[in-house]
Amino acid sequence: MSRVSPERTVTRVNVGAAPTSRRDVLAGEEPLELRVNGQSMAVTMRTPGADFDLAAGFLVSEGVISARDELTAMRYCVGEGEVNQYNVLDLRLAAGVTPPSSDVARSFFTTSSCGLCGKASIDAVRTRSHFEAPTDTLRVSPATLSGLPDRLRAAQEVFERTGGLHAAALFDPSGDLLVVREDVGRHNAVDKVVGWALREGRLPLREVILLVSGRASFELVQKAVMAGVPMLCAVSAPSSLAVDLARESALTLVGFLRGPSMVVYAGAERVSDDEAS
Amino acid sequence: MSRVSPERTVTRVNVGAAPTSRRDVLAGEEPLELRVNGQSMAVTMRTPGADFDLAAGFLVSEGVISARDELTAMRYCVGEGEVNQYNVLDLRLAAGVTPPSSDVARSFFTTSSCGLCGKASIDAVRTRSHFEAPTDTLRVSPATLSGLPDRLRAAQEVFERTGGLHAAALFDPSGDLLVVREDVGRHNAVDKVVGWALREGRLPLREVILLVSGRASFELVQKAVMAGVPMLCAVSAPSSLAVDLARESALTLVGFLRGPSMVVYAGAERVSDDEAS
Repeated sequence: MSRVSPERTVTRVNVGAAPTSRRDVLAGEEPLELRVNGQSMAVTMRTPGADFDLAAGFLVSEGVISARDELTAMRYCVGEGEVNQYNVLDLRLAAGVTPPSSDVARSFFTTSSCGLCGKASIDAVRTRSHFEAPTDTLRVSPATLSGLPDRLRAAQEVFERTGGLHAAALFDPSGDLLVVREDVGRHNAVDKVVGWALREGRLPLREVILLVSGRASFELVQKAVMAGVPMLCAVSAPSSLAVDLARESALTLVGFLRGPSMVVYAGAERVSDDEAS
Repeated sequence: MSRVSPERTVTRVNVGAAPTSRRDVLAGEEPLELRVNGQSMAVTMRTPGADFDLAAGFLVSEGVISARDELTAMRYCVGEGEVNQYNVLDLRLAAGVTPPSSDVARSFFTTSSCGLCGKASIDAVRTRSHFEAPTDTLRVSPATLSGLPDRLRAAQEVFERTGGLHAAALFDPSGDLLVVREDVGRHNAVDKVVGWALREGRLPLREVILLVSGRASFELVQKAVMAGVPMLCAVSAPSSLAVDLARESALTLVGFLRGPSMVVYAGAERVSDDEAS
């Protein structure tokens, strides 16, 4: 039985008909513990698969690393006398790379005083990114963008069977797919894509489009900024703080990318039929 | 401008047409810091509104409190010399109630050894819940369940305008709506509903149905279990670990609740045209 899409016996019910029993495929979800230099750093619920990408992307998103050679080793931790569940990853950082604080989520916000506002969060993100704001000349036509969601769906391996997975993908400016990753958590799907890019030596991610299958929250825009991405597209709606962070970070943010139409919330100059000069 | 649904100027783009500019309504997202007895406990990104419900529900979900009188005060923290952003809440616990560890997310998983598996997570949830597994005689007909999503959508205040909010709602066994809450984060929407129930003196939540607008993850099932809910319904798919936890917790879990059809993943005995004995 696949851990990505495990099966369970379920009951199908229709109003006015007798219930029926059948085997059904589900979106796999299991905990993954990340240990950095021997210290437990985080536990995330994720869909197994591409765990190395997920771990690497998580470290990029948290501002711990920004280049491939800063992460020297990743291996599954083997328990003594137990069956290895492949749910604990041991990560080793290069000498000189500062390990994350033992509580990343909290240290992220410690700069904010009483009166916490969105601005404090945006400032925290901006100061943490290793990369300058994009100053590229990326231009993508609306026609190219409108074709991306269909390409994403065609590339998704699991969604069609389970209906339960988010997807994230990178495309080049002509609309060709570079990578796609899936997860029950949309933040994990993006981390997997970013981690793939780190491991391929592609950070910062200039001249690419990051597409997500759902909504665009503050957290997803933050991950795009941390990876140096110039353009984030979402099939659904963005939040207000996602829009504000995109504008402060020179990130192009497109939402409601459906059929021939879309809404550009930030950086509209990159959505253009004109080629880059 | 509303903080629940703030406006921004956006660019509408259609393939083959000139872009147009317009004002658009977004799903509001701002950080909320929760302080318990003066100590910072968590920062969550949330849609402003029902913050007291959110804070109370978060404490229930984390196993800190399970009754109204264990939470003696909630107030917005006022900064010195600053405009109050209403984004920091100061919570006071009754004498004798143990405050949460300074790092809830990590303490949750500290029992797991190398070889972390879903079972460890499920065990951790079960031992943390203040309430016994439901042994009620709740029975809800498929016809009643099939009507709930439309009632939820009719009750949602913001979704129609922004397309960006998750919703959670409680219904009684005859399908009447008790409460609905919205948020950019689906876990927050559920916490708001649970917190409402705590503040109304309704915990544990027996004889009710919890409906969520999206998918059912492990985390959402966990929140339902912590609040004593006997039945969780989702419009979309559940994950594998959500199903496993529901089965271990005697929770009825319904997914893909759309039109006259639905899939029952756990506790199918409660989905029945037969009245409770």
